[in-house]
Amino acid sequence: MKYTQLFTKTSKNNISDADSLNAKLLTQAGFISQEVSGVYNYLPLGLKVLRKIENIIRQEIDNIGGQEILMPSLSSLDSWVKSKRNTMDVLFHLDNLVLNPTHEELVTPLLKKFIFSYKDLPTAVYQIQTKFRNEPRAKSGLLRGREFIMKDLYSFHTNQEDLDNFYQKVQSAYTKIFKRLEIDDLTYLTYATGGTFSKYSHEYQTLCPTGEDEIHICQKCKVAVNKEIIAEQSVCPQCGGKLEKKQAIEVANIFKLGTKFTEAFNFKYLDSDNKLQPILMSCFGMGPSRIMGSLVEVFGDDKGLLWPQEVSPFTLHLIGLDGQSDDVYEALIQQGIDVFYDDRSVSAGIKFADADLIGIPTRIVVSKKSLEAGGLEIKNRKQEETKIISLDDVILKYGQKRT
Amino acid sequence: MKYTQLFTKTSKNNISDADSLNAKLLTQAGFISQEVSGVYNYLPLGLKVLRKIENIIRQEIDNIGGQEILMPSLSSLDSWVKSKRNTMDVLFHLDNLVLNPTHEELVTPLLKKFIFSYKDLPTAVYQIQTKFRNEPRAKSGLLRGREFIMKDLYSFHTNQEDLDNFYQKVQSAYTKIFKRLEIDDLTYLTYATGGTFSKYSHEYQTLCPTGEDEIHICQKCKVAVNKEIIAEQSVCPQCGGKLEKKQAIEVANIFKLGTKFTEAFNFKYLDSDNKLQPILMSCFGMGPSRIMGSLVEVFGDDKGLLWPQEVSPFTLHLIGLDGQSDDVYEALIQQGIDVFYDDRSVSAGIKFADADLIGIPTRIVVSKKSLEAGGLEIKNRKQEETKIISLDDVILKYGQKRT
Repeated sequence: MKYTQLFTKTSKNNISDADSLNAKLLTQAGFISQEVSGVYNYLPLGLKVLRKIENIIRQEIDNIGGQEILMPSLSSLDSWVKSKRNTMDVLFHLDNLVLNPTHEELVTPLLKKFIFSYKDLPTAVYQIQTKFRNEPRAKSGLLRGREFIMKDLYSFHTNQEDLDNFYQKVQSAYTKIFKRLEIDDLTYLTYATGGTFSKYSHEYQTLCPTGEDEIHICQKCKVAVNKEIIAEQSVCPQCGGKLEKKQAIEVANIFKLGTKFTEAFNFKYLDSDNKLQPILMSCFGMGPSRIMGSLVEVFGDDKGLLWPQEVSPFTLHLIGLDGQSDDVYEALIQQGIDVFYDDRSVSAGIKFADADLIGIPTRIVVSKKSLEAGGLEIKNRKQEETKIISLDDVILKYGQKRT
Repeated sequence: MKYTQLFTKTSKNNISDADSLNAKLLTQAGFISQEVSGVYNYLPLGLKVLRKIENIIRQEIDNIGGQEILMPSLSSLDSWVKSKRNTMDVLFHLDNLVLNPTHEELVTPLLKKFIFSYKDLPTAVYQIQTKFRNEPRAKSGLLRGREFIMKDLYSFHTNQEDLDNFYQKVQSAYTKIFKRLEIDDLTYLTYATGGTFSKYSHEYQTLCPTGEDEIHICQKCKVAVNKEIIAEQSVCPQCGGKLEKKQAIEVANIFKLGTKFTEAFNFKYLDSDNKLQPILMSCFGMGPSRIMGSLVEVFGDDKGLLWPQEVSPFTLHLIGLDGQSDDVYEALIQQGIDVFYDDRSVSAGIKFADADLIGIPTRIVVSKKSLEAGGLEIKNRKQEETKIISLDDVILKYGQKRT
């Protein structure tokens, strides 16, 4: 894509409504635009990142057998009365309807229409959908919104062992997702308050100095304990070793719900003796929009954004400082390389600063100087040094990476 | 995908809440499930169809230079006061917020943040997003919902000629979309009431005996006139010939808005003489969920659904009546063919009836009989006759059609 085709523009102005690093940098780079407090527009570059994050999550959840569905935002209040959660403070009310902040109240009666026997279990469904929460204190840009995107996966089981097995499978899938997002080294499986049906639930917390959560980590076991349970669990739950206090951002959470919702909706199955038995349930959340904000908090610096390769809006950021750059752009897109081409008639300085602000990991410059040196100048957003590389080598290196 | 992996089940039961053919067949086939009146869950097969329709629309709108964004559902009521549409009866209110039933009130101030000069115009942005309308009479399944999916494209121009050119471009894109949906022969560009800024707006109406709209068509020019303007426009607006009355479903609409919204939000541009000038605007709607319902109304029959090839949930419906069918399934998916494999232990009759209900255009049967005859039995959902085809020929014919 050519920069001049994009309707958004970068801006180095101070963003008056930015309450966090992610809101500030994403707004300055033209990725998002605030509508009202806790509610954002995703602009072309921002939507590309959001969709790539969604697709990574989708692929890894599909891989463990999750079936994708799409539940609505609107539902009757009745379902929330049944689960006794109708007094939840973040619920948006519309006459006798509500805007769903989470979907246990919909997915449980929905699955009840199709699941009858032990032969139908286990099963797991998920959606990537908009959630609405009437947060009194919407803040931190994409981290705590009133309208945001969520992947919510729900699984249903005949017994605890089966549920525990699937819970492990989701943990493996989440680890793969964090690896693809390049935050696996920073992300800790964190023990949190359980519920009626399990001693602990688990959060995934990513270390970040600007994170609003305080966790206590065991470097050795790569697990942590959150603030709420540190009083009762003051050593590593796995090795019993000492814990270290850190700031972090919650990027996902997983719960063993047991029969909490299946009982409320009288959702049971017939076992092999034709007897009605309770169904056990788990839920697994992960917010693509929250992850997008977290990646900015973790990787953003004083120059701007810096995207992990797989979610970068483009593979290469091409800067043209010479008439031949149009030909280079054409050659690259002919090879299926996803290039963002700064074709504007502005100074080199502005182009370099915008490249740093937008945060595509690899920058290529076509200039008289680079051509004389035998090709294109290539630079990684994280490093200072530049190298000369031939067009053929760029194609060889990035030609297969179209996303 | 194997049928036994799918959590949904078909049902020949009468659907008590089905108010239309599309609600009935889509529910029986397990594609959708009603949540409350005018609000549906999309189940795995239904979501696949919906996404394919969305992608056809996305590709054709991208091809004419539309830039995809994602605007939120929540916005302040203030924007609707500015455009004087705050009294619109379908608006869902939440304290001082509204749930947007359409997005002119958001897109106009949003673009104002980025567009300043004649050099920034024309530009066109679109989204594929959930809309909320507090319809007093939600009805007709996916055709008139309270929560539904919409592609809304908005364009901005410096002058009428430029707007008219883009309006034509969108018409060409829409024609391509209807061709890919296999409803181009049935779909008429229909003259409808204009507004302050143009004599007519246009609807796209697809002929269908169950359609709720009455239109008057000119077979020769492939245009029509809607009920509201037939009194003033009683002959073909193009050739002056006689018009014929037909029932139809509105599948899209396009409007020249002129300065209606840009004026309300004081959105102007600087011309080459540095003078402020009004911006002209158009909007172009098309609802993927409404189209999904319309395809059922148009192609559904007493046996069930029948999908156009490009939006069918799968390319092939494979029925196994012999132990070798597992191998055939494996061979087909190895070749990248998108196959739905009925691997259940139920009678051939039930499998055939479900294949007709689900409506994948091509059915393949592996049976002792077909293997003895030299291969697989292939049948088109529309036709009665079957043919024998070798596995190699199936791969040759459908191997490139992975979607």
